[in-house]
Amino acid sequence: MSEIRAVRWAQDSIELIDQTRLPDVETVVDCTTVDLLVDSICRLVVRGAPALGAVGGYGVALAMIQGGREGWDGARLGHEIDRIRDARPTAVNLAWGVDRVRPLVAEGVDAVLAEAHRIAEEDEAANRELSRLGADWILAHTSRRPLRVLTHCNTGSLATTAWGTALGIIRELHQRGEVELVYADETRPLLQGSRLTSWELTQDGIPHVIQVDGAAASTLLRGLADVAIIGADRIARNGDTANKIGSVGVALGCAAAGVPFVVAAPSSTVDLSTPSGDSIEIEMRDGAEVTTFHARSVAPVDAPGFNPAFDVTPARYISAIVTEQGVVEPGEGVLVDSLVPEGTSA
Amino acid sequence: MSEIRAVRWAQDSIELIDQTRLPDVETVVDCTTVDLLVDSICRLVVRGAPALGAVGGYGVALAMIQGGREGWDGARLGHEIDRIRDARPTAVNLAWGVDRVRPLVAEGVDAVLAEAHRIAEEDEAANRELSRLGADWILAHTSRRPLRVLTHCNTGSLATTAWGTALGIIRELHQRGEVELVYADETRPLLQGSRLTSWELTQDGIPHVIQVDGAAASTLLRGLADVAIIGADRIARNGDTANKIGSVGVALGCAAAGVPFVVAAPSSTVDLSTPSGDSIEIEMRDGAEVTTFHARSVAPVDAPGFNPAFDVTPARYISAIVTEQGVVEPGEGVLVDSLVPEGTSA
Repeated sequence: MSEIRAVRWAQDSIELIDQTRLPDVETVVDCTTVDLLVDSICRLVVRGAPALGAVGGYGVALAMIQGGREGWDGARLGHEIDRIRDARPTAVNLAWGVDRVRPLVAEGVDAVLAEAHRIAEEDEAANRELSRLGADWILAHTSRRPLRVLTHCNTGSLATTAWGTALGIIRELHQRGEVELVYADETRPLLQGSRLTSWELTQDGIPHVIQVDGAAASTLLRGLADVAIIGADRIARNGDTANKIGSVGVALGCAAAGVPFVVAAPSSTVDLSTPSGDSIEIEMRDGAEVTTFHARSVAPVDAPGFNPAFDVTPARYISAIVTEQGVVEPGEGVLVDSLVPEGTSA
Repeated sequence: MSEIRAVRWAQDSIELIDQTRLPDVETVVDCTTVDLLVDSICRLVVRGAPALGAVGGYGVALAMIQGGREGWDGARLGHEIDRIRDARPTAVNLAWGVDRVRPLVAEGVDAVLAEAHRIAEEDEAANRELSRLGADWILAHTSRRPLRVLTHCNTGSLATTAWGTALGIIRELHQRGEVELVYADETRPLLQGSRLTSWELTQDGIPHVIQVDGAAASTLLRGLADVAIIGADRIARNGDTANKIGSVGVALGCAAAGVPFVVAAPSSTVDLSTPSGDSIEIEMRDGAEVTTFHARSVAPVDAPGFNPAFDVTPARYISAIVTEQGVVEPGEGVLVDSLVPEGTSA
């Protein structure tokens, strides 16, 4: 179950499962250069905030190896590392991963690589722990058994180094025999739900249906789901949470239906230096992702797409935020400091 | 502007613009038999509640002509008319159109056809009048000029006999110089927004962008839209409104953002015999509409799609319902009887 590894260090390159081609084709992109890595990050060959944390760490090692091969000076190396760090702005984990290993550059590539491996290992451990904590919280705050769970985007092994966050909780609940059905939002425009989440759920034999994103609110209001669980790309200090576009609509549906709305992420997704959602930069992607499908237009020629990749769910609509450090139930004046290890700076 | 005719009686058949093929191909399906008509209704060659009202009326004439040609007895004719009437369950207008002309069957096809033409003419007149009333209400309840308008699905000439309902209001506002930008939800799974609404807006030169349905709540919460306007497939007596899946999510976004949420429909969409949304049958369509795109799978093989075609927006989330008869602002205990002509039976 879930032996998928989205990100793997391979000698002196980074192997990424090409998530743009799933579920049709299972293939790997071997990133041997910073150019290839940045392109893969931007095209979403690899995506998911926790996975991007590991990619950030490994990316620094990759840049050092390429720099050694090509004779880069320190300025060039710094520039190339920055390109990786800034390839996507919303998920904090990418910059966090880079920043965590960067102080070790002076010690050499082995030191950087060791720390990058630690990021990956810690992420898997964090996911498994937050899955236990999240499942406990959900079972304590719902009554129907088994549960019908709604989720959005992909938060499984493909989005992390292993196991998953929101999907990790679903796996944990499934292992406890508590899952009746998962409603997986397809997650337009890039269909991470129908392409990736359904693929992972199918591999694990977890019963599920795929619905259009527009169906989520109705499914909740009709009483068809007992809890919604999503991941996060950045959690601000007040609990406001950036996640894949469509997430706040799920949150509003939960609030209207009286259904718990749970955010699950490793502590590396919590950014205490971001006071609230107002400070989170929302990545704008090419409108053609909305107006074309597999290079075929689904709209009149030249009709412009409006394509924010993320939205921000205000903390007041979130029932619980879970990391490996614990659970916080956001509310007026509540800060999420307890979701990160002690000593993490704001 | 908007000379599009989605439904046209042609001698002894019904010509329908094939809305499954827009915007790529502009072609007409000539329905010469009840089989062809029912197939066209089910495949959404023609769709939109008001357009289906006219199709219901013309459909009875078509059945009578085919029955005369093929020697049907009264029982067979009744059965074929019922097939048209029941081809889609949620939009009340289809049954309403059939029921309106059916008493005239005994008087012959000319009488039926004359009444069907009246349905079509009245629908256009109703759309133009409700567009004026709706525009007046919106301008009285918003302050920013010009307006940024969010809409869902297609409610224009293609969805009606002419002009449109929600899109009719947008046209009216545009003619008054009050529209800055339209956010058109793409409207999965069948993309009536990106394929049809964008096509109509482009033809009229109305500035717009296409967004995924999941972006609607975020666009509203970010303060990017001043009003949302949708159509309706059935309006219950208490104001609960069935409309294309995704509509209630727009309503929740409006409520959270403090933005007016307006429902626009001709009075033929108001069903006083339906006390509330709980009594509205929601059409379930083939899950493959979610999991495939242009016959290409976007999900793992055998992954099931969950595909309710409509949702119900509770009246408490609706700021105003507009028909050609007037405007009702729904609320606790408010009935929408004034939205239909006097003497309409419950």
